[in-house]
Amino acid sequence: MSPKITTELLKQLRQAMKSPKYVQEPVQAYIVPSGDAHQSEYIAPCDCRRAFISGFDGSAGTAIVTEQHAALWTDGRYFLQAAHQMDSNWTLMKMGLKDTPTQEDWLVSVLPEGSKVGVDPFIIPADQWKRMSKALKSAGHDLVPVKENLIDTIWVDCPQRPCKPLITLDLSYTGVSWRDKIVALRSKMAERKVLWFVVTALDEVAWLFNLRGSDVEYNPVFFAYAVIGMNTIRLFIDGDRVMDPAVREHLQLDSNLEPEFRIQVVPYRSILAELQAVGTGLSPKEKVWLSDKASYALTEAIPKAYRYLTPYTPICIAKAVKNAAETDGMRRAHIKDAVALCELFDWLEKEVVPKGTVTEIIAADKAEEFRSQQKDFVELSFATISSTGPNGAIIHYKPVPETNRTLSVNEIYLLDSGAQYKDGTTDVTRTMHFGTPSAYEKECFTYVLKGHIAVSAAIFPNGTKGHLLDSFARSALWDCGLDYLHGTGHGVGSFLNVHEGPCGISYKTFADEPLEAGMVLSDEPGYYEDGSFGIRIENVVLVIPAETKYNFKNRGSLTFEPLTLVPIQTKMIDVNLLTQKECHWVNDYHQKCREVIGAELERQGRREALQWLLRETEPLKVQ
Amino acid sequence: MSPKITTELLKQLRQAMKSPKYVQEPVQAYIVPSGDAHQSEYIAPCDCRRAFISGFDGSAGTAIVTEQHAALWTDGRYFLQAAHQMDSNWTLMKMGLKDTPTQEDWLVSVLPEGSKVGVDPFIIPADQWKRMSKALKSAGHDLVPVKENLIDTIWVDCPQRPCKPLITLDLSYTGVSWRDKIVALRSKMAERKVLWFVVTALDEVAWLFNLRGSDVEYNPVFFAYAVIGMNTIRLFIDGDRVMDPAVREHLQLDSNLEPEFRIQVVPYRSILAELQAVGTGLSPKEKVWLSDKASYALTEAIPKAYRYLTPYTPICIAKAVKNAAETDGMRRAHIKDAVALCELFDWLEKEVVPKGTVTEIIAADKAEEFRSQQKDFVELSFATISSTGPNGAIIHYKPVPETNRTLSVNEIYLLDSGAQYKDGTTDVTRTMHFGTPSAYEKECFTYVLKGHIAVSAAIFPNGTKGHLLDSFARSALWDCGLDYLHGTGHGVGSFLNVHEGPCGISYKTFADEPLEAGMVLSDEPGYYEDGSFGIRIENVVLVIPAETKYNFKNRGSLTFEPLTLVPIQTKMIDVNLLTQKECHWVNDYHQKCREVIGAELERQGRREALQWLLRETEPLKVQ
Repeated sequence: MSPKITTELLKQLRQAMKSPKYVQEPVQAYIVPSGDAHQSEYIAPCDCRRAFISGFDGSAGTAIVTEQHAALWTDGRYFLQAAHQMDSNWTLMKMGLKDTPTQEDWLVSVLPEGSKVGVDPFIIPADQWKRMSKALKSAGHDLVPVKENLIDTIWVDCPQRPCKPLITLDLSYTGVSWRDKIVALRSKMAERKVLWFVVTALDEVAWLFNLRGSDVEYNPVFFAYAVIGMNTIRLFIDGDRVMDPAVREHLQLDSNLEPEFRIQVVPYRSILAELQAVGTGLSPKEKVWLSDKASYALTEAIPKAYRYLTPYTPICIAKAVKNAAETDGMRRAHIKDAVALCELFDWLEKEVVPKGTVTEIIAADKAEEFRSQQKDFVELSFATISSTGPNGAIIHYKPVPETNRTLSVNEIYLLDSGAQYKDGTTDVTRTMHFGTPSAYEKECFTYVLKGHIAVSAAIFPNGTKGHLLDSFARSALWDCGLDYLHGTGHGVGSFLNVHEGPCGISYKTFADEPLEAGMVLSDEPGYYEDGSFGIRIENVVLVIPAETKYNFKNRGSLTFEPLTLVPIQTKMIDVNLLTQKECHWVNDYHQKCREVIGAELERQGRREALQWLLRETEPLKVQ
Repeated sequence: MSPKITTELLKQLRQAMKSPKYVQEPVQAYIVPSGDAHQSEYIAPCDCRRAFISGFDGSAGTAIVTEQHAALWTDGRYFLQAAHQMDSNWTLMKMGLKDTPTQEDWLVSVLPEGSKVGVDPFIIPADQWKRMSKALKSAGHDLVPVKENLIDTIWVDCPQRPCKPLITLDLSYTGVSWRDKIVALRSKMAERKVLWFVVTALDEVAWLFNLRGSDVEYNPVFFAYAVIGMNTIRLFIDGDRVMDPAVREHLQLDSNLEPEFRIQVVPYRSILAELQAVGTGLSPKEKVWLSDKASYALTEAIPKAYRYLTPYTPICIAKAVKNAAETDGMRRAHIKDAVALCELFDWLEKEVVPKGTVTEIIAADKAEEFRSQQKDFVELSFATISSTGPNGAIIHYKPVPETNRTLSVNEIYLLDSGAQYKDGTTDVTRTMHFGTPSAYEKECFTYVLKGHIAVSAAIFPNGTKGHLLDSFARSALWDCGLDYLHGTGHGVGSFLNVHEGPCGISYKTFADEPLEAGMVLSDEPGYYEDGSFGIRIENVVLVIPAETKYNFKNRGSLTFEPLTLVPIQTKMIDVNLLTQKECHWVNDYHQKCREVIGAELERQGRREALQWLLRETEPLKVQ
């Protein structure tokens, strides 16, 4: 990996920072955040501006360029990679280390008095703008919006913004029509006394209109905004994709609908002008609802007195609670996914053990191949983490030729992978040993398994927030002085983003919304030993009502149903460390794998994988 | 309980609200909070202003009086009591119910345009002022400080502010001299680059100077402030108590100390003028450290640019971590406390069963009598909760003649009590049955016990916050659909307040500081069945280092050691619901009670109580 040479680019950027073509007054610093205009986790190539200017292409990081300096902030996952990818023009700011200054503190320390700091107001979320602007102001500087993105002005071969065809989802997938979703949204708006709702997150636009796209890798979304009024619906979207007859039919663009359900299709870029028009036309008590993570540009378009900002939008919350059609779809998707993984693991056992020719990349590709054979497969839901031995200890590892390692009978193999099917999104991690695991490896695996079961089998009152379950996943590890340094679970979309809010299971977040039946999360404790191995056991689980003996204050109880049905390698389990209840959980789980996945393997005529499944789901002897 | 007639008082208060003697301009509303000028949990009679004006004397509540209305906000614990104690001039605002307006919203709904809302700036914490002021301002009103407390102007027979003698604590109790505490505080101040530290909480003043008082019932504190500079120490305290030779000697008031350790004793009331003088004398970069819960009056005395506010002060954090002398003292105090409770329970068994003449009040008085026989007993640490049958379900119950119930062989008895000894503070709850408990009562008791053990035996990494342990206490109850609606634990002072920050175990608080060895907390899960019974099992526990098999990232682990050593009634336990590990925990705990408390009962010649202890600590049969 050789660093990107950025001398010329930085020179050009510094010229742009002073050019009256782009800025009213020169800016002494320019901030290049990671995100796109929708605050997406995964972004399109045309939005990889920070990677373009710095060379560092990890998923998280912010670049700041001043007349004299260029600095990049990223977190511990990426220290090594960033150091490799950036040339000597750049200073790496290691976030999380004690002596690393914040972006604000660093700016204050290097800027001449009364400086202007520029940023693209479409890229920076309003809450971040507020924080940074305040800090700069108190030191005598100004954060200023630079309308034209300065990176775009120097990025000669910038890829085009993707504009791929749309997929329409009918009621059998979504359970609720876009029209009924609009009705429900308007009733939430009426409750809060707001007249307008601005949809800025890509997955929220996709969910609301029952459409999917492929503008961003792994996330089946498309570039669009929407503005919903009590009597109007405006969809901001580019290209001829709305000329597709299927899309026109789906959105009923050519039908004579009641006016309040007629969708006006408007160019993507006109969102700002449109919002400004909405903003100026408001009378007192007419509020506009936005996520507090919406961009500064869109937030500012609405005068402060008329803004109604919330951390989670009603769409975000409604989207998290899957209806019957969606949960059925998720179940189907997970069955297909399990079939693919049974095929894969059977194939791996047959290849790794005698031949030893399978690398991490080959295994990842094979997993994709098996998945792609399944009905309604669309794409992967994230970059496959296929890691063996010491690579398994790198939590966000992705095999590349430089690190690619061959699977062997002497090392633990960790595979964290998932796919988008038209009926649902999957995300599953299994940790396998193709030889004989050591007692210590089995011990650690078993603690992780105990944590996985503790969450999966937990019963808790309706309305409990996910973060209150996080310690259950750690308790067995803690007892022995072990732990893992990531959260335990994230929300999962329904043929949508594999990471979605507003629920999760983590010691870090307390802003999560209460769990409700129908929500879908991952349950993925782990244990990582630097330089040796990584262990993680991940299922996607559905929140379901629990039957309990009593019912305190009539609150009702919840628990989880595993949607993922892939055997957990019993060879890695030290049965002596499990309680009877835990043994029963494993056996019941494997029995369900046999029944459900066994039947599907049979149906698909995948005999060898079925044999593998039967072998792997032999019950543990309960002591 | 008949309501207090407040018609005349309200008339007088409303006159004061308009009187140029007290207010520059009339105020249209006046807020009467619960607290005192130190934001104490327990307050002196002279500070019970809200109780005086409204009649409601519960521990939490805020009264607001306007020209037309009088309203009182309190929480679910006190709805009944407040309704009984207040006359028809008052509207009860039931906090936590959906339709109850906040104080701000209510004010906005009833006030004429452009109103002024008055409050005593010494009573309202700065953070509350900020929130309320902002809400009122955005509706066109103003929150204004009224220097003279308007309740005091109409409270003819207001009790005097207590000014009781001080107790000096030598090194054998405190482990660290006040001088060394000042040195440590100044080093924390230097670290944060602040020049002044203002001590506003009463227990922080007491701890810093190794002094105790009895100005407030249950809390061994005295009315004082302190201002610590890098070279000066000022103690704001009234009365001739600093003329006591022991106190003068302790504070070395007549010695020729180095100037930076000379304590200047100043009148209590002069704190504001003194702080204003500090505030005006500051140059840039000279900061003053205050708790963000300090009163608005004291916070405002320091210009905003010079304030350094934190939720927890360095004294609060240092005070929470008990040193060897303090933990030894806590152990001694808990041994004495256990002796008193063994006497009590032995006595109860002998009185309740055959005679049936013991009431809740008699039992509470008897508990105090036995405690007062112990060495260095000072007072109770809170009002004893002595409750039988349905009264046990009232979580903050205190027996009064109107509710006083007789203990019987047919009901569960719950006793939550504690004391201040010169060497430590205790707080213990035991739930007993003097007849034959039902299977259901035993079942519920056993779930609570399992929760108690889950916290007490938990092993967790150094630096874990207490709120991450809360769900451990609930898990067994949750499994059966049960729960309890209070936190699991609070910090406990060392011969200081029975409730202290900055640590705790609760699903409600996320602002707690990480747990450290030496911290002392309560572990008190419960279960309450309205109209039937209450169960709670509470020990005070000490955070200690835990030995673990491994040591991830060299972080080290922690666990708890029970300081409370009072038998847990085995008659109430359904052994079939306990795991082997839990049975062993109970047996080990009882073995320790036998050894430690048995020896002390022997030493004190309390033979019958010793026999009771031996009977009650018979080991469970492990299955």
